[in-house]
Amino acid sequence: MNGNRFGRLFQVTTYGESHGEAMGVTVSGCPAGVELDEDLIQRDLDRRKPGQSMITTSRGEPDEVTINSGVQDGYTTGTPVGMVIQNKDARSGKYEPYVTAPRPSHGDYTYSAKFGTRNWGGGGRSSARETVNWVAAGAVAKAVLDASDHDVAIKAHVNRIDDIEAPEVSFEQLLEHSEENDVRCADPETADRMQERIEEYQAEGDSIGGSIYFEARGVPRGLGAPRFDGVPARLGQAMMSIPATTAFEFGLGTGATEVTGKERNEDWEFDEGDHPETVSEAGDPVPVGNDHGGLQGGITTGEPIYGEVTWHAPTSIPKKQRTVDWETGEAKEIQVVGRHDPVLPPRAVPVVEAMLYVTVLDFMLLGGRINPDRIDDRPGEYDTDYHPSSPHNE
Amino acid sequence: MNGNRFGRLFQVTTYGESHGEAMGVTVSGCPAGVELDEDLIQRDLDRRKPGQSMITTSRGEPDEVTINSGVQDGYTTGTPVGMVIQNKDARSGKYEPYVTAPRPSHGDYTYSAKFGTRNWGGGGRSSARETVNWVAAGAVAKAVLDASDHDVAIKAHVNRIDDIEAPEVSFEQLLEHSEENDVRCADPETADRMQERIEEYQAEGDSIGGSIYFEARGVPRGLGAPRFDGVPARLGQAMMSIPATTAFEFGLGTGATEVTGKERNEDWEFDEGDHPETVSEAGDPVPVGNDHGGLQGGITTGEPIYGEVTWHAPTSIPKKQRTVDWETGEAKEIQVVGRHDPVLPPRAVPVVEAMLYVTVLDFMLLGGRINPDRIDDRPGEYDTDYHPSSPHNE
Amino acid sequence: MNGNRFGRLFQVTTYGESHGEAMGVTVSGCPAGVELDEDLIQRDLDRRKPGQSMITTSRGEPDEVTINSGVQDGYTTGTPVGMVIQNKDARSGKYEPYVTAPRPSHGDYTYSAKFGTRNWGGGGRSSARETVNWVAAGAVAKAVLDASDHDVAIKAHVNRIDDIEAPEVSFEQLLEHSEENDVRCADPETADRMQERIEEYQAEGDSIGGSIYFEARGVPRGLGAPRFDGVPARLGQAMMSIPATTAFEFGLGTGATEVTGKERNEDWEFDEGDHPETVSEAGDPVPVGNDHGGLQGGITTGEPIYGEVTWHAPTSIPKKQRTVDWETGEAKEIQVVGRHDPVLPPRAVPVVEAMLYVTVLDFMLLGGRINPDRIDDRPGEYDTDYHPSSPHNE
Amino acid sequence: MNGNRFGRLFQVTTYGESHGEAMGVTVSGCPAGVELDEDLIQRDLDRRKPGQSMITTSRGEPDEVTINSGVQDGYTTGTPVGMVIQNKDARSGKYEPYVTAPRPSHGDYTYSAKFGTRNWGGGGRSSARETVNWVAAGAVAKAVLDASDHDVAIKAHVNRIDDIEAPEVSFEQLLEHSEENDVRCADPETADRMQERIEEYQAEGDSIGGSIYFEARGVPRGLGAPRFDGVPARLGQAMMSIPATTAFEFGLGTGATEVTGKERNEDWEFDEGDHPETVSEAGDPVPVGNDHGGLQGGITTGEPIYGEVTWHAPTSIPKKQRTVDWETGEAKEIQVVGRHDPVLPPRAVPVVEAMLYVTVLDFMLLGGRINPDRIDDRPGEYDTDYHPSSPHNE
Repeated sequence: MNGNRFGRLFQVTTYGESHGEAMGVTVSGCPAGVELDEDLIQRDLDRRKPGQSMITTSRGEPDEVTINSGVQDGYTTGTPVGMVIQNKDARSGKYEPYVTAPRPSHGDYTYSAKFGTRNWGGGGRSSARETVNWVAAGAVAKAVLDASDHDVAIKAHVNRIDDIEAPEVSFEQLLEHSEENDVRCADPETADRMQERIEEYQAEGDSIGGSIYFEARGVPRGLGAPRFDGVPARLGQAMMSIPATTAFEFGLGTGATEVTGKERNEDWEFDEGDHPETVSEAGDPVPVGNDHGGLQGGITTGEPIYGEVTWHAPTSIPKKQRTVDWETGEAKEIQVVGRHDPVLPPRAVPVVEAMLYVTVLDFMLLGGRINPDRIDDRPGEYDTDYHPSSPHNE
Repeated sequence: MNGNRFGRLFQVTTYGESHGEAMGVTVSGCPAGVELDEDLIQRDLDRRKPGQSMITTSRGEPDEVTINSGVQDGYTTGTPVGMVIQNKDARSGKYEPYVTAPRPSHGDYTYSAKFGTRNWGGGGRSSARETVNWVAAGAVAKAVLDASDHDVAIKAHVNRIDDIEAPEVSFEQLLEHSEENDVRCADPETADRMQERIEEYQAEGDSIGGSIYFEARGVPRGLGAPRFDGVPARLGQAMMSIPATTAFEFGLGTGATEVTGKERNEDWEFDEGDHPETVSEAGDPVPVGNDHGGLQGGITTGEPIYGEVTWHAPTSIPKKQRTVDWETGEAKEIQVVGRHDPVLPPRAVPVVEAMLYVTVLDFMLLGGRINPDRIDDRPGEYDTDYHPSSPHNE
Repeated sequence: MNGNRFGRLFQVTTYGESHGEAMGVTVSGCPAGVELDEDLIQRDLDRRKPGQSMITTSRGEPDEVTINSGVQDGYTTGTPVGMVIQNKDARSGKYEPYVTAPRPSHGDYTYSAKFGTRNWGGGGRSSARETVNWVAAGAVAKAVLDASDHDVAIKAHVNRIDDIEAPEVSFEQLLEHSEENDVRCADPETADRMQERIEEYQAEGDSIGGSIYFEARGVPRGLGAPRFDGVPARLGQAMMSIPATTAFEFGLGTGATEVTGKERNEDWEFDEGDHPETVSEAGDPVPVGNDHGGLQGGITTGEPIYGEVTWHAPTSIPKKQRTVDWETGEAKEIQVVGRHDPVLPPRAVPVVEAMLYVTVLDFMLLGGRINPDRIDDRPGEYDTDYHPSSPHNE
Repeated sequence: MNGNRFGRLFQVTTYGESHGEAMGVTVSGCPAGVELDEDLIQRDLDRRKPGQSMITTSRGEPDEVTINSGVQDGYTTGTPVGMVIQNKDARSGKYEPYVTAPRPSHGDYTYSAKFGTRNWGGGGRSSARETVNWVAAGAVAKAVLDASDHDVAIKAHVNRIDDIEAPEVSFEQLLEHSEENDVRCADPETADRMQERIEEYQAEGDSIGGSIYFEARGVPRGLGAPRFDGVPARLGQAMMSIPATTAFEFGLGTGATEVTGKERNEDWEFDEGDHPETVSEAGDPVPVGNDHGGLQGGITTGEPIYGEVTWHAPTSIPKKQRTVDWETGEAKEIQVVGRHDPVLPPRAVPVVEAMLYVTVLDFMLLGGRINPDRIDDRPGEYDTDYHPSSPHNE
């Protein structure tokens, strides 16, 4: 409604500005009994952290998370998980020239037009710093999925920078290679070329766009609530919430325009045993192929869900640009200084994964596949063997 | 949540299956005082109606809407507008072979996997017939916008079928030409080529994909609630709810990967008078160019909002295909008969427009630009000059 | 948000005015596989229907429901259940004098103040006629509960009219006697006295207040999401939505002010076998007594949930009263004619029960006790033995 | 949905357990331009704080709030206000005996039944400590209302303890006297008697129930969205969310049963000038009397909104009681030690007021009476005179 909450049963509520006191995220709807601690969340925050390589901003944020509630003796209690990440390395001074003279193509003007004011330090709430909250929430969602009976695996990598496109990679390659290089491209050779290209633009004081390929495996079939809460619709909302995104695709994506029905339609055959959910003797219908991206009629087929998200080039570049000052009424030249990324997808990989974890878990809760109250038993069955956290157990 | 509602303050709730008794839509949150009647809604329904040309299904639905509530003496009363459209030409018999043997790439299997059953006639609730409800709701939203002080204009056209792409068209061309041909492409020459191509596929018993370009003008700046309710996120959800869509883009879309920051960034200059909202002497900052698609930081800049949506080829084709019957345990050959569209975008134009109307109005209500209770005066001011509908006025 | 929707996972959306074309209700979130038809819903509508006795309005509405969607071959399909009830006996003429001169203590003035207009015939949307939609939705909720593995029983009766109070009755008495008399009081002797009293007021052209006692048995323990979605909070919202209600209580209610902690606190003992959910050898803790009304910390204990709702006297009375005409600027005398109830609780009994069914089911879905997609198997397990409705099965 | 969020446009999301690290609250939907700092919030927190008198718990919590976001240079920015209150004086040791043996009539058993575990220290999330978050949110809502063009005043006091009932008091008395004594009763003589009675129970190791009367003045007419979002329904939800409440009433409340229509109905007359909103020459209809409690048809009439909320006696009492241990399978005797309140309403007065502020503001935002984005100008008008916070202004 007012932009600071995502999710239906698994609800993520966030606050924070780039140069404010702290970032904060409340995860409500996390089942009890899930192993969770700050280290586990920290691992994902570290992957998103600024300053991790030459092609990211040099802002020095440790991004250390504190869990204020919802966890006891290393396990969630079913009550909201409140987390805070202090902002440590804010240097607002550099942003003073832009207070009344908006930086080109940033959110400066629109935030001021909406609110009549804005927190101008570091872009305030329009900054991608906000996504630190999302990654923390995604780590919680991942912990829930890992603790469940399901075997969901999610991974993303950078598949395009400028006109350099990665070849198709297997899910195993994704898992194995995408975190090995600074670009986060699972094809090492392409990663090198991308890195080189990014450095060229960086050297020119310019920036460049790119895209991310994502894949989710093990998401049970039958999830998604058409017509307005289908998986494509909610994934679309999730991905288009990420700052600087301009496109969301799944399955054949924009390429679907040139594919005929005969080419794209996939016959059904009986599952021959490699689909873990099959329990009938006859087997279950499985599609021959996955041009449908794991989704038919807005509902999961059990096949891998995959797609792409596009980012435009970062708007903070040292090039001289022109703006106007609405206080003085004068046009002026500005140069955006500060510590900025020359390209967005490499640091956005954990953000895309986080939004996938949150969205997939939310659908699994809505579809009754995970007990919304506690992870350790099934809905409908009552567990008299309570497991309250006890000081005597230690 | 469970898929049958869209919108936050302007809420659209729908029901209905392709071969069920009737389709129904409840529009809640429509301000009072808006001129509305069945004829006005019918005009848009007729644009979506089946059987309107050689390249649409021949199903003979009159699609006549009945307003059951919320309107009195030709004006809305602020209470929910309940509408019903009877299904008249349902012929379920043809769908019997698919009851336990899913059609390739339809929603047959996933609906059954989710619900353990499904309304199989004509695709039941997974059918695009549902969008008749959306067009009715969009017509109500359009009526509200038209009655407001704002001057919002929305139009879409088919800009790509297979590999045939329309040249860039002006908004005026869109308004003037897109309804002139069966393809709904605003460039007449391209429309002819598209029509020909579609007929070729149709003759081969095949179908083809395509895309729609949309544009919204006059949407006030300052709308959209980042980070999760930004305009791109909610538009993305809206468009990815439309059946058979595979991609949503705005601004440069997927093309943004190859554009550098220097190329894409747009300087600010002072408005020189052609932006209606400017009231200060100094003028207001306006961007030089619109690669940003009217949206910065998820909030409207006041520039036109534009983008594209992609559809895959229709899955109902007369080609012989293979499926399995989960009741008999046998594989079998099927041939999808029935009355179907060889391409989706032409009939989806009014659907895209409807989702835009609903989404834009919702943001205008959320942003306080339109009185949520009544259209005839401004919030905060009390109008003692009541205008209740009176029998003595007639 | 805008008043026409109730429920979280089990969502009820309504429309309709007293003298409009039709009333309508969409039930979204009803699991598939539930036996449901119009007769079943009609049985509850008939209990709420006007004209059923001397102490109800004589308006002649048959209140016949049509199911437009969501049901196939007598079972729900998981898609929304759309229902319509035509208005047949609207006589708006009598309401003309009140178009610009509000009836005392009705919603006439406030609806006009809010919307700048209103549907004035029969009170329009402010009329209790709206509750016909709620009773239809409640019947669907009841059908879902009946089809589930749970054994929920809900019943209400009129326990107070004026200063006549019914003695405490057992749940069995409630079930057996509350529908036996026109007052719907489960104590026959009290019912007679209430009936007499009501007729006295009716004869004087006056009306009187009263209250309803409700009880829900078999609601599983552990339901309710504190702090803002606890069962008391959501029941409170449900009951205070019913027209003309002025108080909601549960457990000791307002009487709790005079009870000490020692008196009210209830020891825990081991369940000795009469609580069906107990499966452990040790037994389960059960409270000795039920002053807590089945709810502790906002969550169900498994004990019966009970409480009371109060109605003020109907405001439509034939007495001469004074009002002002905002069009003419003149004060004037009016006399509310029409067909009205001299007391509200008797006809409100099915409405209270409906709101209980809807609220309880919603909590059971939220708590994972009922599969949100289908009633016939458990979440987490995949049923390959599909039961699609088949013409060949008949 | 899952209990940790309240409000529609003005959204309050909370976390925290009694003996956890910290309590936290995120206020989303707070317009920009509202003067706000920690001192202002602290003033209300201090009124709710433990240890403020002899009749409250002696737990030593300073309850100091930190604002982490949403405020810049003393004014809100329109982005979410994130607040944290550290827990300082948690002594969990005393609660160890209850880990597997629930305290009578607390939330111990139900939380464990729901989640399979619970944070047992100090009652965890079921503790009334949570309401510190609500009071902080209420202070923000009050600041917004104070900064608006409206003149809303809200006050509550304790009107009943045991069988001691305060006489009717004027709103001026409420404002003047209710904070003068520890009981928070606006009638000093009654307050003394209540204080004495509470101390008697306290001395006996017992506790007692009571109730609060609340009143809201200056709430504009025409607010509230029937049928499910009427003001009574949402106030009912708000008040029944407060821990240990058992009844909500407005207007005549439970007393309405014995009042006839003739007695309760209120004639309309023309406003003679004391209603600030009247602008027509003829004046506006105003009701003669306010038995309706400011609400007709679920919508505000502009008259004062008033009602009552009832609390049962605190359940934490030093009396010996019996419980069972579900781990050992043994019954046992327990005695609840700790620092507890002998009566709840005195400390609940700021909580009731907070929930009123939040609910009233939410309705004003929904009704378009306050600009949802910023307080300093009206919706629909664009203010080019930006007021961004500037370092040069200082």
